[in-house]
Amino acid sequence: MPETATARPAGLPAARNSEGDQMSAAHSALLNTMQQRFGERFSISTALREQHGGSEAHHTPALPDAVIFAETTDEVAEIVRLCSASGVPVIPFGAGTSLEGHLVATHGGISVDLSRMNEILRVSPEDLDCTVQAGVTREQLNTYLRDLGLFFPIDPGANASVGGMASTRASGTNAVRYGTMRENVLSLTVVLPDGKVIRTGGRARKSSAGYDLTRLFVGAEGTLGIITEVTLRLYGIPETVSAALCSFETVEQAVGAAIAVVQLGIPVARMELMDRGLVAAVNAYSGLSLKLEDSLVFEFHGAPAGVQEQIELVQAIVEENGGKNFEWASTPEDRARLWNARHNAFYAVVSQRANAKGWSSDVCVPVSELSGCIRYTRELLEDCSVPAAILGHVGDGNYHVVFAVDPTNAEEMAAVAAINKKMVRRAVSVGGTCTGEHGIGIGKIAYMREEHGDAVDLMATIKHAIDPTGIMNPGKILPVA
Amino acid sequence: MPETATARPAGLPAARNSEGDQMSAAHSALLNTMQQRFGERFSISTALREQHGGSEAHHTPALPDAVIFAETTDEVAEIVRLCSASGVPVIPFGAGTSLEGHLVATHGGISVDLSRMNEILRVSPEDLDCTVQAGVTREQLNTYLRDLGLFFPIDPGANASVGGMASTRASGTNAVRYGTMRENVLSLTVVLPDGKVIRTGGRARKSSAGYDLTRLFVGAEGTLGIITEVTLRLYGIPETVSAALCSFETVEQAVGAAIAVVQLGIPVARMELMDRGLVAAVNAYSGLSLKLEDSLVFEFHGAPAGVQEQIELVQAIVEENGGKNFEWASTPEDRARLWNARHNAFYAVVSQRANAKGWSSDVCVPVSELSGCIRYTRELLEDCSVPAAILGHVGDGNYHVVFAVDPTNAEEMAAVAAINKKMVRRAVSVGGTCTGEHGIGIGKIAYMREEHGDAVDLMATIKHAIDPTGIMNPGKILPVA
Repeated sequence: MPETATARPAGLPAARNSEGDQMSAAHSALLNTMQQRFGERFSISTALREQHGGSEAHHTPALPDAVIFAETTDEVAEIVRLCSASGVPVIPFGAGTSLEGHLVATHGGISVDLSRMNEILRVSPEDLDCTVQAGVTREQLNTYLRDLGLFFPIDPGANASVGGMASTRASGTNAVRYGTMRENVLSLTVVLPDGKVIRTGGRARKSSAGYDLTRLFVGAEGTLGIITEVTLRLYGIPETVSAALCSFETVEQAVGAAIAVVQLGIPVARMELMDRGLVAAVNAYSGLSLKLEDSLVFEFHGAPAGVQEQIELVQAIVEENGGKNFEWASTPEDRARLWNARHNAFYAVVSQRANAKGWSSDVCVPVSELSGCIRYTRELLEDCSVPAAILGHVGDGNYHVVFAVDPTNAEEMAAVAAINKKMVRRAVSVGGTCTGEHGIGIGKIAYMREEHGDAVDLMATIKHAIDPTGIMNPGKILPVA
Repeated sequence: MPETATARPAGLPAARNSEGDQMSAAHSALLNTMQQRFGERFSISTALREQHGGSEAHHTPALPDAVIFAETTDEVAEIVRLCSASGVPVIPFGAGTSLEGHLVATHGGISVDLSRMNEILRVSPEDLDCTVQAGVTREQLNTYLRDLGLFFPIDPGANASVGGMASTRASGTNAVRYGTMRENVLSLTVVLPDGKVIRTGGRARKSSAGYDLTRLFVGAEGTLGIITEVTLRLYGIPETVSAALCSFETVEQAVGAAIAVVQLGIPVARMELMDRGLVAAVNAYSGLSLKLEDSLVFEFHGAPAGVQEQIELVQAIVEENGGKNFEWASTPEDRARLWNARHNAFYAVVSQRANAKGWSSDVCVPVSELSGCIRYTRELLEDCSVPAAILGHVGDGNYHVVFAVDPTNAEEMAAVAAINKKMVRRAVSVGGTCTGEHGIGIGKIAYMREEHGDAVDLMATIKHAIDPTGIMNPGKILPVA
């Protein structure tokens, strides 16, 4: 058993390979019961199971035994109760956009697809909050909110489900101003591993009433229960929005400018780094003609005078740090083009190579360490045989490397894994984290003890107490033997 | 056993009254061991125990068996290990400013005084963060930070310890702009109930690496472990700070203006309600001559043009809502006088009656419910026989009632308790919480199930898993039979 492993509970099936054919009699009986109960919303089709047990990312898929499309919290509770009684794993599925193998059915089981739970249950413009079912996607939500003059800022790029974003503690480009899912989830409805349904909080903006269960489930990656409803903070669409792009001769200059903006407390809404490799990929993929230099993209939100003041301060900082070619995207169309290109960065890198998969690794470090960590990462990439680019939400100290890999090439995968390991270790060694926003899944488990030390044992204690039979998304965050 | 009770672990002493004289042999032996080990830093003096088992608030004191002044995390771990072996309760003590009986030694035990752990261990101006020992007070920290151009915004009024503020998930006047301890603690060093020491996180601004242990201990009121070090977010002192006070004929008008400011997303740094009763008390206590009307106090932080813009927007909203007498406190001295008066609100109300204690109850509701809840509370206060006033961090939907009570008058205490109960129930019934920032302690336990339903059982599961012998601040948050 590896050092970080939690013991495998007696009832839980062993880890399996992608064939996934070691099924017990109780397990088979459960599938029959489920089929009777859910009819055509239950499926064992290989194509569907492949879609639910794989991802766009590089991890080796492992298929669930079946997929069920749940439509209500009560149905999810019923599925969990049945699985609990039979010791069958349960894996919640939202939009399938996670990057660290969160959906890989390492121990088989049932994939509970929540995508049909896509109702926006309530919006309160007075309170700037809403409650949605877990399968609502962020684009769906923002389309709905637009006519009310509101928006939900958390934007991981992909059109993820709100439940999935809560489960991975997602953030993205706007986090430097608006925070992450940690700060923007007010409360959750959760189905616990025994099938009980709880609410983790109310609608008050703050509370000191007991343990912070909301924050316990945000980021738990479905290992403690299934999130079925989410109450979110919302924001008024700013009166003024302005975006700008500028370029630098070196990535250190770009990072230096970003750090200065943070340190001066200028409330930029977005501040994104694209290294020159990424700019090239984005130009090719999205038909843009951005200057081939290390670049920062800014967005400013607020009332007109405040935005103008922010712009002037940022422009001065950029120039002091050697930045130039300040280009404005003032119309909504120009801004949309710029941010769409940024959002498609993952695909832009992957498309540089035929039949490649994307391996996107993210770390987050104190901003004072950002320049050194990125410089070190670039040095590592000099010896990398596959297309790779650096991008980042640098205002938070968070950056990603996207590699275009061939998962069937073991030697290449080992080489990329070695680079990833060095990048992660460097981040952890300077007080950072092995993942700023993608989550642990199966991809970062090996770094949990390195980052958290004995605190990992406390996480395992909590996991055992809440999910004693270990059925909730086993093998994620904490390894199961 | 009441519905919300968690079972009393076999080793834990029964709840006791304030005489606190039912001590087992093992318990007495432990005290001898502690005295040997800690010498003059161990005390059983009645005066000291009274100071540690009581508070300025209305709760009936219960004394710990002894007080130990710890000086290092290792010492705290040693004390906890010894107490754990003997089943003796441990109650962490910071500055003694909590309001809901968090320090009352309902089951006896050792009060671990952390006030000598008051070292500022590290400040990083580049990263806008610092690490301090738990006994550092917020005023001590801000005095230290001033020369660096930095400040820590969380301001509960009292000069609380940072560890205590983390433990009660404190917030206060600046939370509408900067968030609460929930958002501003980056990580903690915690002594667990078995004496192990963990770090709950690193220094990255965000992380998706496993369960959010930081947020689990923030607000746990010492019931899951003892916080000994805290890493905090810091902020640059704003270039421009401006404060203003304005008055309204009715409290509904004042609340209406506050709600409009929130809904427009104007980033005010502070927005405080003082009802006319509080204004009268504050004038008398602090020698001011504020107009005797329901009032809002604002503070604005930022760069000059942005602040000016905020001021103009707020002034227009205030006038639309019937506000008048806009008075500016532009000099640091004027601002300090205004905020000191506001900070002394608790004492101002209590001083209206000789030999009174303060009973400060707080609730937090969605802002759309704030006006109705405050109106209801004022109606309740019309029949109240003791001095009372309403004040609030209305930008968050958080308000307090301070009563000046005579704790020895059972009839009066029952009458105030009845008002409190009605106020809390109304808050919970509209989606709010029974405490926005004071915590549960012993004072709000009765409302835990009403607010959280079956989620209380999950909290008890977590408590049992982390503290199986139940020694950590027993009787707080979750009752012990």
